[in-house]
Amino acid sequence: MYIGRFLVVGKTPSGESFVAYRVSSRSFPNRVAKIVDNKVYILPKDPEEVLKNPYISYCCLRVEDKTVVAGNGSHVDFIAEKLIYGKRDALAYPLLALDYEKDEYRTPRIATVVDKEECYLGYIKDDELAIKKVSLNNGEGIYLGVYNSCKIDESQKIGIPYNKAEEIAKYILNYKFSHPVVCVVAVIYNEYIDIKIAP
Amino acid sequence: MYIGRFLVVGKTPSGESFVAYRVSSRSFPNRVAKIVDNKVYILPKDPEEVLKNPYISYCCLRVEDKTVVAGNGSHVDFIAEKLIYGKRDALAYPLLALDYEKDEYRTPRIATVVDKEECYLGYIKDDELAIKKVSLNNGEGIYLGVYNSCKIDESQKIGIPYNKAEEIAKYILNYKFSHPVVCVVAVIYNEYIDIKIAP
Amino acid sequence: MYIGRFLVVGKTPSGESFVAYRVSSRSFPNRVAKIVDNKVYILPKDPEEVLKNPYISYCCLRVEDKTVVAGNGSHVDFIAEKLIYGKRDALAYPLLALDYEKDEYRTPRIATVVDKEECYLGYIKDDELAIKKVSLNNGEGIYLGVYNSCKIDESQKIGIPYNKAEEIAKYILNYKFSHPVVCVVAVIYNEYIDIKIAP
Amino acid sequence: MYIGRFLVVGKTPSGESFVAYRVSSRSFPNRVAKIVDNKVYILPKDPEEVLKNPYISYCCLRVEDKTVVAGNGSHVDFIAEKLIYGKRDALAYPLLALDYEKDEYRTPRIATVVDKEECYLGYIKDDELAIKKVSLNNGEGIYLGVYNSCKIDESQKIGIPYNKAEEIAKYILNYKFSHPVVCVVAVIYNEYIDIKIAP
Repeated sequence: MYIGRFLVVGKTPSGESFVAYRVSSRSFPNRVAKIVDNKVYILPKDPEEVLKNPYISYCCLRVEDKTVVAGNGSHVDFIAEKLIYGKRDALAYPLLALDYEKDEYRTPRIATVVDKEECYLGYIKDDELAIKKVSLNNGEGIYLGVYNSCKIDESQKIGIPYNKAEEIAKYILNYKFSHPVVCVVAVIYNEYIDIKIAP
Repeated sequence: MYIGRFLVVGKTPSGESFVAYRVSSRSFPNRVAKIVDNKVYILPKDPEEVLKNPYISYCCLRVEDKTVVAGNGSHVDFIAEKLIYGKRDALAYPLLALDYEKDEYRTPRIATVVDKEECYLGYIKDDELAIKKVSLNNGEGIYLGVYNSCKIDESQKIGIPYNKAEEIAKYILNYKFSHPVVCVVAVIYNEYIDIKIAP
Repeated sequence: MYIGRFLVVGKTPSGESFVAYRVSSRSFPNRVAKIVDNKVYILPKDPEEVLKNPYISYCCLRVEDKTVVAGNGSHVDFIAEKLIYGKRDALAYPLLALDYEKDEYRTPRIATVVDKEECYLGYIKDDELAIKKVSLNNGEGIYLGVYNSCKIDESQKIGIPYNKAEEIAKYILNYKFSHPVVCVVAVIYNEYIDIKIAP
Repeated sequence: MYIGRFLVVGKTPSGESFVAYRVSSRSFPNRVAKIVDNKVYILPKDPEEVLKNPYISYCCLRVEDKTVVAGNGSHVDFIAEKLIYGKRDALAYPLLALDYEKDEYRTPRIATVVDKEECYLGYIKDDELAIKKVSLNNGEGIYLGVYNSCKIDESQKIGIPYNKAEEIAKYILNYKFSHPVVCVVAVIYNEYIDIKIAP
């Protein structure tokens, strides 16, 4: 199944909250993830491609204090900058302002805000907006993808058998959903947040 | 079951779209609905009660052009005044700005925008915001209540065996959910919108 | 000069920040102000008038923690409930959602958020939105009215020769602008906020 | 005087409305403007610079139907995509969501929406938000810059002695404000919009 770019939020078997973001792409597979300070960027290997499509290079994950914000486009930065609003509204206003991607697929924007205590998921489609707090269980993840899976639903589960960011990143990169490109994982520990990228 | 105030959107057996709004209340049963021009107000029988609670008197249903806006509080007016934004965003911004009711129950705000072509439902809770286009079927209604039923879900159905606004209003007033107070129904015909109140 | 309802924000001669809100009205002079807990309501003397115009009864001033929110309509409550956003955005979103008054005058909504450290003024008109931090000087007030004075401008000054809330309320009630009805003043002291009404 | 990036909206001597956007920059002078379909991009000459600062490459001007949207950052696209909201609110929500630039200068975002009938200017600073309809006079422009001139004020005028987009672009590029980099001008004719770049 192809679900396009997707998020997974969940807990490791030992109980640490994590966020994963995987790029899956039929059209723009030649991309990499790059960590710069507290941000992870998705970038095309060929810089010339930036102008071909405004939606293929962006900060996909960002750490603010002890909170992780992730998503499939430039809304991630604006959500991170609005955390003072509370998680629900920090998601709502940037999603509404940036809206779904204005290409032929009307691709939804998806996003998450997670800290040790709480996890919110959100998305915006042409005819829908949803933001919801979800509960996370040890050893389980909830996924939210742009195609065929763009809903916040306890039935969209992935078992998570690994504890470390790099193991989870490799596992989700190889998960059954088609057209994997790159996967970024942030695991939230008490004292720090560990970010790893696969491959 | 007590689901508090609730909306029903659906189609009559003969295929006209309708909106119903029923006040159900344990705390403030002494209220009436009153049609004034293109609006329907919910009002306490005793005007002194207005100051006791800011959430018990409001315009619950309003017609703009050929569109019906309904809901459980003062957000209805502001949604109706923002229809130029499109239905999704006309619901989103007033729900976010007015937010859930700031009393001990943290009661959600619920709302709908319906015309002959489309129906959107929306609500805001302390930890959730949802706005979604729904499909309506002949002889069926979808309900959205403030308690125990505050989700947009095809499983929340009510069969609708009547065609006329006054019949539907009486039927939904007497529907199994407890503590009925008053029910307002607007049926959308090609040329006009018929509003009736029960009892 | 008639400037309709107006706000004055400033400092007393002894340096306490204050907020004044005066109802001036040609159409609905029979109104009073009433303090209920941390709020001040503007209400018509005749409860029947509530239905004649949705804009004549509202909470005009509200204290949250050590912050005063005031304005000329129901946006005051929603601004007060959004102070977590910061003063600028707590003003912006409710003003945008509730918009100017939809009557024949297209009357602007005006509002202020003031604490010991900072003062913001804001308004929305049909073709304008402005929110701005202003500096307050001892013995001076800045006014912002709905007609002929709806701008945030250092030239709109009122000398303030009094220190006590009741004196300031009486003074602003009798200030030269025409059609006074009632004036509410809140003076912000270190330990409490003193609210008085004139007449 | 250095006013950073700035907009000029006005009318040519022969009465056509126009929009000009000039990049002025002390830190990133090596940039160009490039027209792609209905958009004009500001881009660094060295693609590697894109990652150094998120605020130096963006669509600065965009034509939708017969409306021109321009500004100093990525808010331009989102404003253009929200024109259905009306000009005031199409400016307001993206400015609020994207906010001022989160660098050491807290640089404001500035923007304009102009068609044959109307012109709105807007900006957001850390302590201010303003959006206002302005009147344009033949042979005159109103400028709005990010530094030392970030206000909507009839006193901020530039005489416009030229009628053609390329002449205006050259003229504003060479205007007295320091550190010019590139200037884009769109003149709105009845049947089409002419966009030219200088140098």
